[in-house]
Amino acid sequence: MKDACADAQTDEFIALANRLADAAGALSRASFRGDLAVDLKADKSPVTEADQAIERRLREMVSDAYPDHGLIGEEQAPVNAGAEFVWVIDPIDGTRQFISGIPMFTCLIALMRGGRPLIGIIDQPVIKDRWVGAAGRETIFNGGPVRTRACASLSEAVLNTSNPVLFEGPDRAAFERLREAAAWTHYGVDAYGVGLIANGAMDITVQNDIKVYDYCPWVPIIEGAGGRVTDWRGAP
Amino acid sequence: MKDACADAQTDEFIALANRLADAAGALSRASFRGDLAVDLKADKSPVTEADQAIERRLREMVSDAYPDHGLIGEEQAPVNAGAEFVWVIDPIDGTRQFISGIPMFTCLIALMRGGRPLIGIIDQPVIKDRWVGAAGRETIFNGGPVRTRACASLSEAVLNTSNPVLFEGPDRAAFERLREAAAWTHYGVDAYGVGLIANGAMDITVQNDIKVYDYCPWVPIIEGAGGRVTDWRGAP
Repeated sequence: MKDACADAQTDEFIALANRLADAAGALSRASFRGDLAVDLKADKSPVTEADQAIERRLREMVSDAYPDHGLIGEEQAPVNAGAEFVWVIDPIDGTRQFISGIPMFTCLIALMRGGRPLIGIIDQPVIKDRWVGAAGRETIFNGGPVRTRACASLSEAVLNTSNPVLFEGPDRAAFERLREAAAWTHYGVDAYGVGLIANGAMDITVQNDIKVYDYCPWVPIIEGAGGRVTDWRGAP
Repeated sequence: MKDACADAQTDEFIALANRLADAAGALSRASFRGDLAVDLKADKSPVTEADQAIERRLREMVSDAYPDHGLIGEEQAPVNAGAEFVWVIDPIDGTRQFISGIPMFTCLIALMRGGRPLIGIIDQPVIKDRWVGAAGRETIFNGGPVRTRACASLSEAVLNTSNPVLFEGPDRAAFERLREAAAWTHYGVDAYGVGLIANGAMDITVQNDIKVYDYCPWVPIIEGAGGRVTDWRGAP
């Protein structure tokens, strides 16, 4: 009975996560390629009113459904971050792509339980591609299960990363070695590229300087498709 | 009367170019994210049965409509390349993206008259974004006119390119200077990024080692939106 209860609870959380992604998508589609007021954050990265509006709306939806849950978002201050259940939200991952009209930005949603990722969503609302992962379950892409692919050798592997310039010093050298050994490398795909690895369309993503909102949703999505998320040394 | 005739003829050619893009899109959507047999060309770049099938279909459609027109395609031998009117076709520009499930590949179609681009189409069939340019006319994106944007200084400019590794030697140094001076750079967008410049969503694309099938459709699309296509020295 306990497992059945936990499963039913996870189903409920997944349903909310999907509603959050639906709401975020409706807002980002409405602003995409429109007139956008762009501000610069302290780290000089851009943020738009759409990023802020989506995060506000998702915070309301979570606190209406589960007032005792915590929430960490990219744009606003954390709420109740020590709770058993904490939602982790990046309203628009890839704000630069969003601003420049490239539909490779995503909404990232994760639910953490006791500090471990329980649920993850990567959603691209213009193309309408959505990956949903949950600990111990198969990853679902647009309604059907997906699996990472077998890859016999690094020379056959297709790599992706967001931006080669983000790697510096020894990370840059390590990335260059990997890039030269692989079949080819795609740039500019960010979390969308992580989803495509779950689909078995590519093999490896390499990212650095990633934040908790980026990383958390990947884990159940990649693991639920048979893949692994590690650091450079292979540690989880 | 002569101008009215030329306009009516251009309308007819644009209608065929749109039908070519429709046919290419139907074929590439049918194969996208399916099981693809991948061959390697002499230059080690990949090609799929979809690239070949699209080019065959488009060649048939052109020769049925205008038997005296020439055709240059990326995958098969040129036909009647010295004709007054020559169609230039890249069935899938960005075959690697196509193979890897990234909907940033495009179908590129141009019609040359006496060696100068008369019509150009950039079409992304999954997202259903299409740019249509014709010499002396406004560029049309998804049915409506678009314009490049004003950009006061290079430091405000948003740049795009396909792959930073493609630049070598002095081209690499020139690209790095441009990249460091610009606001930010998007990678992995290829011809789709050229279209977004016509839309005024970005400012500059830099590409090297481009072929006639890549370059020809850009010219009427960028020029019809008020932009310019030049070499490193600013020559057309």
